[in-house]
Amino acid sequence: MCGIFGVFNSKEAASDTFYGLYALQHRGQEAAGIVVADYEESKKRAVFRFQKDFGLVSEIFSDEDFEKLTGRAAIGHNRYSTSGSAKLRQNIQPFSVNYKSGHLALAHNGTFTNARQLRSDLREKGVIFQATSDSELVLHLAARSTAKKPEEQIFDALSQIQGAYSIVILTDTQLIAARDPYGVRPLSLGIKKQSDSNADCTFVLASETCAFDIISAEYVREVEPGEIMIIDRMAVKTQEPRSLYLPKSQKRARCIFEFVYFSRPDSIIFNESVDKVRRKLGKNLAIESKIKPAEDENYLTVISVPDSSNTAALGFVTESNKHNVPARMELGLIRNHYVGRTFIHPGAESRELKVRSKYNIVRGVLKNRRIIVVDDSIVRGTTSKMLVKLLKEAQPKEIHLHISSPQIISPCFYGMDFPTRDQLIASMLESENDKIRKYLDVDSLTYLSHEGLLNSVPKHEDEESSYCTACFSGSYPIAINGANTDKYENDD
Amino acid sequence: MCGIFGVFNSKEAASDTFYGLYALQHRGQEAAGIVVADYEESKKRAVFRFQKDFGLVSEIFSDEDFEKLTGRAAIGHNRYSTSGSAKLRQNIQPFSVNYKSGHLALAHNGTFTNARQLRSDLREKGVIFQATSDSELVLHLAARSTAKKPEEQIFDALSQIQGAYSIVILTDTQLIAARDPYGVRPLSLGIKKQSDSNADCTFVLASETCAFDIISAEYVREVEPGEIMIIDRMAVKTQEPRSLYLPKSQKRARCIFEFVYFSRPDSIIFNESVDKVRRKLGKNLAIESKIKPAEDENYLTVISVPDSSNTAALGFVTESNKHNVPARMELGLIRNHYVGRTFIHPGAESRELKVRSKYNIVRGVLKNRRIIVVDDSIVRGTTSKMLVKLLKEAQPKEIHLHISSPQIISPCFYGMDFPTRDQLIASMLESENDKIRKYLDVDSLTYLSHEGLLNSVPKHEDEESSYCTACFSGSYPIAINGANTDKYENDD
Amino acid sequence: MCGIFGVFNSKEAASDTFYGLYALQHRGQEAAGIVVADYEESKKRAVFRFQKDFGLVSEIFSDEDFEKLTGRAAIGHNRYSTSGSAKLRQNIQPFSVNYKSGHLALAHNGTFTNARQLRSDLREKGVIFQATSDSELVLHLAARSTAKKPEEQIFDALSQIQGAYSIVILTDTQLIAARDPYGVRPLSLGIKKQSDSNADCTFVLASETCAFDIISAEYVREVEPGEIMIIDRMAVKTQEPRSLYLPKSQKRARCIFEFVYFSRPDSIIFNESVDKVRRKLGKNLAIESKIKPAEDENYLTVISVPDSSNTAALGFVTESNKHNVPARMELGLIRNHYVGRTFIHPGAESRELKVRSKYNIVRGVLKNRRIIVVDDSIVRGTTSKMLVKLLKEAQPKEIHLHISSPQIISPCFYGMDFPTRDQLIASMLESENDKIRKYLDVDSLTYLSHEGLLNSVPKHEDEESSYCTACFSGSYPIAINGANTDKYENDD
Amino acid sequence: MCGIFGVFNSKEAASDTFYGLYALQHRGQEAAGIVVADYEESKKRAVFRFQKDFGLVSEIFSDEDFEKLTGRAAIGHNRYSTSGSAKLRQNIQPFSVNYKSGHLALAHNGTFTNARQLRSDLREKGVIFQATSDSELVLHLAARSTAKKPEEQIFDALSQIQGAYSIVILTDTQLIAARDPYGVRPLSLGIKKQSDSNADCTFVLASETCAFDIISAEYVREVEPGEIMIIDRMAVKTQEPRSLYLPKSQKRARCIFEFVYFSRPDSIIFNESVDKVRRKLGKNLAIESKIKPAEDENYLTVISVPDSSNTAALGFVTESNKHNVPARMELGLIRNHYVGRTFIHPGAESRELKVRSKYNIVRGVLKNRRIIVVDDSIVRGTTSKMLVKLLKEAQPKEIHLHISSPQIISPCFYGMDFPTRDQLIASMLESENDKIRKYLDVDSLTYLSHEGLLNSVPKHEDEESSYCTACFSGSYPIAINGANTDKYENDD
Repeated sequence: MCGIFGVFNSKEAASDTFYGLYALQHRGQEAAGIVVADYEESKKRAVFRFQKDFGLVSEIFSDEDFEKLTGRAAIGHNRYSTSGSAKLRQNIQPFSVNYKSGHLALAHNGTFTNARQLRSDLREKGVIFQATSDSELVLHLAARSTAKKPEEQIFDALSQIQGAYSIVILTDTQLIAARDPYGVRPLSLGIKKQSDSNADCTFVLASETCAFDIISAEYVREVEPGEIMIIDRMAVKTQEPRSLYLPKSQKRARCIFEFVYFSRPDSIIFNESVDKVRRKLGKNLAIESKIKPAEDENYLTVISVPDSSNTAALGFVTESNKHNVPARMELGLIRNHYVGRTFIHPGAESRELKVRSKYNIVRGVLKNRRIIVVDDSIVRGTTSKMLVKLLKEAQPKEIHLHISSPQIISPCFYGMDFPTRDQLIASMLESENDKIRKYLDVDSLTYLSHEGLLNSVPKHEDEESSYCTACFSGSYPIAINGANTDKYENDD
Repeated sequence: MCGIFGVFNSKEAASDTFYGLYALQHRGQEAAGIVVADYEESKKRAVFRFQKDFGLVSEIFSDEDFEKLTGRAAIGHNRYSTSGSAKLRQNIQPFSVNYKSGHLALAHNGTFTNARQLRSDLREKGVIFQATSDSELVLHLAARSTAKKPEEQIFDALSQIQGAYSIVILTDTQLIAARDPYGVRPLSLGIKKQSDSNADCTFVLASETCAFDIISAEYVREVEPGEIMIIDRMAVKTQEPRSLYLPKSQKRARCIFEFVYFSRPDSIIFNESVDKVRRKLGKNLAIESKIKPAEDENYLTVISVPDSSNTAALGFVTESNKHNVPARMELGLIRNHYVGRTFIHPGAESRELKVRSKYNIVRGVLKNRRIIVVDDSIVRGTTSKMLVKLLKEAQPKEIHLHISSPQIISPCFYGMDFPTRDQLIASMLESENDKIRKYLDVDSLTYLSHEGLLNSVPKHEDEESSYCTACFSGSYPIAINGANTDKYENDD
Repeated sequence: MCGIFGVFNSKEAASDTFYGLYALQHRGQEAAGIVVADYEESKKRAVFRFQKDFGLVSEIFSDEDFEKLTGRAAIGHNRYSTSGSAKLRQNIQPFSVNYKSGHLALAHNGTFTNARQLRSDLREKGVIFQATSDSELVLHLAARSTAKKPEEQIFDALSQIQGAYSIVILTDTQLIAARDPYGVRPLSLGIKKQSDSNADCTFVLASETCAFDIISAEYVREVEPGEIMIIDRMAVKTQEPRSLYLPKSQKRARCIFEFVYFSRPDSIIFNESVDKVRRKLGKNLAIESKIKPAEDENYLTVISVPDSSNTAALGFVTESNKHNVPARMELGLIRNHYVGRTFIHPGAESRELKVRSKYNIVRGVLKNRRIIVVDDSIVRGTTSKMLVKLLKEAQPKEIHLHISSPQIISPCFYGMDFPTRDQLIASMLESENDKIRKYLDVDSLTYLSHEGLLNSVPKHEDEESSYCTACFSGSYPIAINGANTDKYENDD
Repeated sequence: MCGIFGVFNSKEAASDTFYGLYALQHRGQEAAGIVVADYEESKKRAVFRFQKDFGLVSEIFSDEDFEKLTGRAAIGHNRYSTSGSAKLRQNIQPFSVNYKSGHLALAHNGTFTNARQLRSDLREKGVIFQATSDSELVLHLAARSTAKKPEEQIFDALSQIQGAYSIVILTDTQLIAARDPYGVRPLSLGIKKQSDSNADCTFVLASETCAFDIISAEYVREVEPGEIMIIDRMAVKTQEPRSLYLPKSQKRARCIFEFVYFSRPDSIIFNESVDKVRRKLGKNLAIESKIKPAEDENYLTVISVPDSSNTAALGFVTESNKHNVPARMELGLIRNHYVGRTFIHPGAESRELKVRSKYNIVRGVLKNRRIIVVDDSIVRGTTSKMLVKLLKEAQPKEIHLHISSPQIISPCFYGMDFPTRDQLIASMLESENDKIRKYLDVDSLTYLSHEGLLNSVPKHEDEESSYCTACFSGSYPIAINGANTDKYENDD
């Protein structure tokens, strides 16, 4: 997964992008970069400047960098990856190139499912790839397009690409945004108006709207599935970007896992508040739950795994109380604020130390209690297992693990970094709830049902199959390059 | 403020100390260090090894470092300081020196109130100071003591020192812990027993017990005010350290602000769970609060300023409900996980950007609601003001700010890093609640009363005046070097 | 200018390349890199590994790097450049890419004179360039060739390129060396035989043979102008590489300035010892010189500008004595050993401080003497002027500056980093010897004649116009892309 | 060995010190530091600022550093050490401390022979040492002096110290220089006058005068053995420092090895030009040499080991010719300019690679010739042996090694970093010339005689035993702490 950001017509384009990426840091911690376009009304070509490196946004950029990164348009990228190719410096985005029509810089969130074929075809035609990432394909396809205008070249390029993508592109005079016709990854448009409402505005684009809040921009709408939005000098004058549209796909396939876990609760994605959905997940989990207070208890003690499950746990407690199952939210786990990106310290290979370094128990809250632990999802199960072990040091009477989503049974081929099928706990233990429960060593294990999941997300009446639930269902809406359902790997 | 840690007789003394300091990171982020003593039964002198640097614990130490930091005893220190002297490399603790009786290494949390006089006296006698920190005084006083044993030299040294201190010291054969007779700063003893309960144990010492949890050590008791505890080979055999005792002070003066804000909620300090006290503060705040749900409201919407006020907010909600004032905890503010130690980015001088970088609002939770914001304390007021401004972007109907402690009216001379008196909001606005309320731009402002504060902390029946409440009351239990109540400054 | 190196079939290919680049460091100090090919008999594709960075060879590589850079073939590059484009990380060579036929890595010394046209043509066809350096062109042209074998693709590519180049290329199974048909830049073949003379040998390639000496390899011969030499498993078995040949150019144009200044005196280039040529330059300078000892002198006092002019000065003294003009070599200037690559220190913008930091005078040697200073060449004249000023502090009676080459009157378009024409001292002062003499503030100024220069270098009877003397004569043997004799600049 | 520098009343004191240390870099490459005193006429106390680190001077300081290092007086130090204690950061000089009378900063070249006793005595009195270097003793002794003025405290301190030292000290108002009464290590005074000759001047102090040349200062005289020179505001007004004098020692013991090898040839030390002495050493070597041209030779081919032996080789050639033994200086060895301080590269443990990385042969000059190699000294013999091996690759007919000093038979206890006695080649091979010759694999081996050595250095008629020749003679002029002639080691 990755976070992308773009801004057009800002006096502080690089700084805005820095803060935008900072707010999107959870979408990728491996590397980050900013490309700035310094354009002038009177010139056809802008000067492009960039800085990118491995690490967190706050580690990569220093004050002096911003003195150099001058220009009124910028894009940025946070990279997330655990594959070996993440180690390659040339894979750090945004990519920035010169080609026949000038400059192009691109930042991409998603995965192309026909990348292998496209890459192989281009290679036969003599194309040399610098990076091993799919994202470079867009640039080569655009550079080889016979169209004249950059937006048309990009249209040509994206027409040949299948898969999941949200993209921001800088040309010499434009900021272009695009989403695949399925709408798998989120991308939203924001605006910053001048006090004089008729004056030129600043447009911003971001994977999640938390990136608008940090720079005081207002949310406008999501970039639509299949939309190629062109923001240029005209757009900032009229305060209205123009758009091209890729052919409609049969259906939409918004990633439901963005709501379940990935996005920040304070963001809007797919035109909906993540907080609201996540709370609904908790509520539906409460409705489905069979746990009641024990005879010697006045209420259920509910704790979340901070911070990702806080909202669902709150929803759970509220709904529980509404159904006359008294419940109380407690802080049984404390999250360490200083958990960094890399953790390469003594014994760090031990997952137990990783868990202990991230969480600590509040004994007084847990001791001799029956505890409902609300967590958002279980992938490998190793962290959950260690967390349960840690909780048990506080000597709770019972631990009931409630997951605010169904079992994850299949890998993601559209950009979410899940492990291969056989590393998923549901696969390893044959999806049998009781086997998983025993492995995790809890007194009960409850997953939200598929219905509960789908009931929690907004409906799109006019759209067929609005969400991709492949990780929970195994049903893939976009064809995977020859039906290969092994973990996709770049072939370089 | 600082965090200190010590361990004796561990196969992984340096690694234990690393994790201990990691858990105590909130007590100081400027610099950190570890000193390891590699001693052998048969030798009088240990080999001392150290590493220390500016930065977070996780930035300072790498895997290879631990291969070098061999030895079975260690102490560590997290440094917190905003004064200029913090920039000096030689001030990074632990201090480690050679002297006539061998090696001494020391880590210190606190402030000596007669440091100026002691330093001046020693200087006249020809002593050269390397650091500008008070802590070095202990070493010089011990080195000049006529006593023969290190523990007696340290007793001599501490007998001449007034002020607040919790100290851990390594000698060639011992780990020594000491607390001032007032008991201002916390320090606790922990133990790790071998499976064979008669085998030699490992002793640990830490400012807060969260440092024991991370390395799976058990809490034993606090080091008592005025106690000088000696842990050596005998102690680990008998599982019982021996102690010397400084003359008793008339009264105790435990820092109440450790409970209010500074310590982690999952820690035990002064023999009490911080979580429990902080929850009691919230409860007492609820009892004192006059806010009721409005006519069109079913319940009070309570949000905390995460994460430091979470526990108090929970206590507030619980107690409120108990008193038939329905209240619900909501997540209206999201804390960014990637807020680092230093924040030196574009416009970072602006406190507004600092606040926006740390927190974001969840609009759906706040919009059109009357919000009770529970926060632990107000120092300068600038952060609170910005937080209120940020909350207002979500268009709440009203904001009622509840502080789970009284007004801070006086600086701390015992180690807490408060600003000078005239930078405190209570001083600037003459302690008038309404002036402060208007400045912060909230609909009401409620502080916990002094009685509510004292009622929340454990009583010590046999002790006179168990807590230092100087920051809230202006009454200083330990004389300040000639009654100088200006901000104390080292004179180097 | 740059230095290039290649090795095939060595157990320590990366380490050999490190030492080779270390010996060639004088050819480029901006950046360096090594690419290693880890191939196996049984596999078609090798694993390529690389490391490259800005700085000196000794700064870029550490011990651990060599543990990772495993493989039996390698190429390396030292980059020299003062143009802005040198600051771009992506311009650091060797370039290493994937293309349809596998891997290619390339290191290049020289300049293509039709680069602008080739680049523009390729760009129109949709090619995206990563670097702004010409060298990348070879890779794109090879990747677009319809030939099947890498050596044929490279032949195709080089057939389209005009200009000066010595190139080493790694493919998945071969080390390929190539020189332009004019033979402008040097490139030599070396060999390391095993004690068993029939065993597989190691082949090495380097800009200068000093790179062979450091790794105890033997010099074989130069790679011929227009030769494309292919070293593969067969070649190391038979101890004989095979070659393709580009069409012969009408004439040769070996860079005479390599002999005058650029190459190391301990190297062989163009099949001749640099030391021998440089000594001959000094001898011819002595023959042409009109300076005799003064009446009160027993001999001429000759000093060199260390270390580049040492050999010429020795030749001068020897020849002078042979012609009954007694002369003695003295050490009047001492060269600081610690002059680093970058000199960014207080006042370093001042050329005077640069000269003072590099050289110091030995007063006793110079005071009250008439001094013959032998230097190899004058480019801008600023360093010479400062050196004269420095020498005068020792109060010599007279200073007679003797240059062991003619006036430099024209820029180089084949890779030597001279300034534009109007920054050359000869241009500024209209080539008038006396104006230059006055500017430099010396008592006399003598340049070697063109005849003296050409008489010093080896003859190639069978070759027309064996040397490029464009910098001294203004006559350019290879056409410059539309006769543009302004300083050539890449257009990116 | 170390280099020291001081400057008083300069607008660019830090920058002057940087360049001074840069010129003295050969005296120590391990670490360096600068302390600046920012004093004002009207104030008793100066502000002291410093920067120091491991590495070369040019690596440690950057442009911004000089913006911070403001102040008109400064001292600097280059550290040379191979002992383990060199790895300690706290040993990097100058030392800078606060004490009862203000600030003191000190830089020291030399060794105290009674350091062990002084250290032990002070320690018993309660002194804590920060560094393990002797130099700190001066500061503690001065701080404990009952005298009032810093210069008197320093007099007191030095009166208690035995051994070799040249020292520069900054106080709040003075720059103080001192040399031990034997005058073992060099230290000179220089001056920079303003154009108005009556205006305040700038005074400089340096181990060698090459540090004056680089900043255009003039040499005045050496600081005399036993002199404590005080440079203050009065001194710069009157252009005359005042001095205190330590009791005279019976004799002088200037280090003769400074002339033989250590100092730069362009320096003046002990009031004499090093170039002149070194040339005399070469001349005397020629007089003592028995080598004549062979029958088939017209002249002796003489090469030096660059650059340290260049001057002696020149002297050898000149004198040889004068005695009708025709000889010619040739450049048979080339020194690599890029040899850095540390050489931690593949196979670098091999001395052969070290020698190959530093030197290369010029085959044409050496092949089939009888070669006289002039070198300055042989310590362990390992480098010489490798150099001979390297030379033999050029297939000379014979190699005759001439050393411009006698055999080194004893370690130095006064600061020169020789190995222990049994690592000296002369010790290992029992001083037998022929054994050493065979070990080095040369055709003949000639050392300069003791008489030749003493005849080369200036006489001091009025002084008894002007030079320390202990390394050549085994006779130590200053008592070594209980006649312990093992390698002296600090006891920390």
